[in-house]
Amino acid sequence: MFREKIKVLDCTIRDGGLINNHDFDQRFVREVYRAVSAAGVDYMELGYKNSKELFSPKEYGLWKFCDDEQIKQVVDGIKSQTKISVMVDIGRVNPDDVKPSQDSPVDMIRVASYVKDIDKAIAMVNEFNQKGYETTINIMAISRDQGAELDEALHQIEEESRVDVVYIVDSFGALYQESTEWLVKKFKNILVSREVGFHGHNNQQLAFGNTIEAIIHDANYLDGTVYGIGRAAGNCPLELLIGFLKNPKYDIRPILDVVSKEFIPLRAQIEWGYIIPYAISGMMNEHPRAAMALRKSEHKENYREFFEKLVSPDVE
Amino acid sequence: MFREKIKVLDCTIRDGGLINNHDFDQRFVREVYRAVSAAGVDYMELGYKNSKELFSPKEYGLWKFCDDEQIKQVVDGIKSQTKISVMVDIGRVNPDDVKPSQDSPVDMIRVASYVKDIDKAIAMVNEFNQKGYETTINIMAISRDQGAELDEALHQIEEESRVDVVYIVDSFGALYQESTEWLVKKFKNILVSREVGFHGHNNQQLAFGNTIEAIIHDANYLDGTVYGIGRAAGNCPLELLIGFLKNPKYDIRPILDVVSKEFIPLRAQIEWGYIIPYAISGMMNEHPRAAMALRKSEHKENYREFFEKLVSPDVE
Repeated sequence: MFREKIKVLDCTIRDGGLINNHDFDQRFVREVYRAVSAAGVDYMELGYKNSKELFSPKEYGLWKFCDDEQIKQVVDGIKSQTKISVMVDIGRVNPDDVKPSQDSPVDMIRVASYVKDIDKAIAMVNEFNQKGYETTINIMAISRDQGAELDEALHQIEEESRVDVVYIVDSFGALYQESTEWLVKKFKNILVSREVGFHGHNNQQLAFGNTIEAIIHDANYLDGTVYGIGRAAGNCPLELLIGFLKNPKYDIRPILDVVSKEFIPLRAQIEWGYIIPYAISGMMNEHPRAAMALRKSEHKENYREFFEKLVSPDVE
Repeated sequence: MFREKIKVLDCTIRDGGLINNHDFDQRFVREVYRAVSAAGVDYMELGYKNSKELFSPKEYGLWKFCDDEQIKQVVDGIKSQTKISVMVDIGRVNPDDVKPSQDSPVDMIRVASYVKDIDKAIAMVNEFNQKGYETTINIMAISRDQGAELDEALHQIEEESRVDVVYIVDSFGALYQESTEWLVKKFKNILVSREVGFHGHNNQQLAFGNTIEAIIHDANYLDGTVYGIGRAAGNCPLELLIGFLKNPKYDIRPILDVVSKEFIPLRAQIEWGYIIPYAISGMMNEHPRAAMALRKSEHKENYREFFEKLVSPDVE
């Protein structure tokens, strides 16, 4: 019943870090790592590898930088088969910070890229590949970039890159099943020698449904986060994904435990999930930044006004 | 772009009533009716028509009984094209309480039935049809009843009943897209002269996704509730469904307003939505009653224990 090639990647700390300045403490990250490891999840992503010349460690938490030493403290003494992943943004990483993979606790580096930056992304994954890492290119904001440039970028990746996996990233939570199916088929069609991944956002409560749709059409790398944590509406809940997959190597129970003990209290302090302004930005295929600003304002429940501004952005 | 035959039915007060003993006050119900009417929603369902000999009005709110007089007070003076629906359970309605349709504010009666009770459901819809009502049969717990008995029931409905619409009701929130597709195709295939409807539950955050799946395969009657209110995990959020449908007759803004003003405060008092024990019962294809009991207990966040009991129900 199950498809052995499927790999689940937990990006709780990485995508969750976008709502708390990447400031999870070591104890919390170890608890998540312990749970994800016991659940048999294939990869765990801890954060971004950013240059400290561009971002100050005084302003951001540990997981904005993902120093190897910090990662070693997280994994130390915990029995695990889970590989470690970090994400890099184009132009924000200092290549000297990335040691050869045999000297690092990191197994996989994922490069987040817009279609327009695909040349840079290819250069980066090729360099990381030479240093011995598994690599992915995560094409962001895909719901906005579906034209000829996307086709060209995918052909270029297939022909010029050494990347292992190319992800469809629904940054705006704007995809429906039909658009997900269309994209996965396009990716599989062009990227004949690579795996395809899917990273959903949950603005319209479709992150899990679209992930299932991606599985049906042969995407094998699937992102989830514990209790759906992540920027704005959050992501595909890892517990739902694990509950759906039939591979006996996965065990949902450690994830249930860590939700009970860590995420229920955390959710009382910071917000993510199904919140109407994020649903509206998903429907409108917009970046959630305007909705995030609204949620920090006094008018955070003024949904109609927010909707009307998005529909007629010039009327201000 | 839009399919004109699609009808949206709001069952906010009816399914939401399952979590508050059907005890919404007249003011609240009027506000929902006002919003749903302004949004262009086709039907609004107010509750159940139960016999007062079986249930005491002292123990339940108005919408357990749906007296015509109460309904008239709700709709009085509000401009609307929205038709009124009530639901009946097999064996709980006194036929004398149902007047001929021309003497009642009710337009549609929906009969909730398990597959095993389909003979009784057919007798009831035929009687209500003769009294002039539009009718539906809503086949509950469909994720448990997919064998030969379901086929037989559908053939019987097609041959013996005067019903207009037959609903697939995912009572346990256990369906995925593929099972939804399979069911809608089966229903359409057998019920050649009827419309097919879909009523989802949101245990696994799939109520909206499965509703879209049902639309793709030609279900035309779609249930939603404001802000997803409903028993346990709740239902398909009406605002997402309206946001998805392209028919210009629908307007999302009045729904956004009523969420802001009425449902955000209400959600702080009673709970529904994405709550892990409901997700677990959806995954396990179980009635949510055990999860509902857990949520009323001191151990409401003990997810692992709850999961393990459901997996091994004899180990107690």
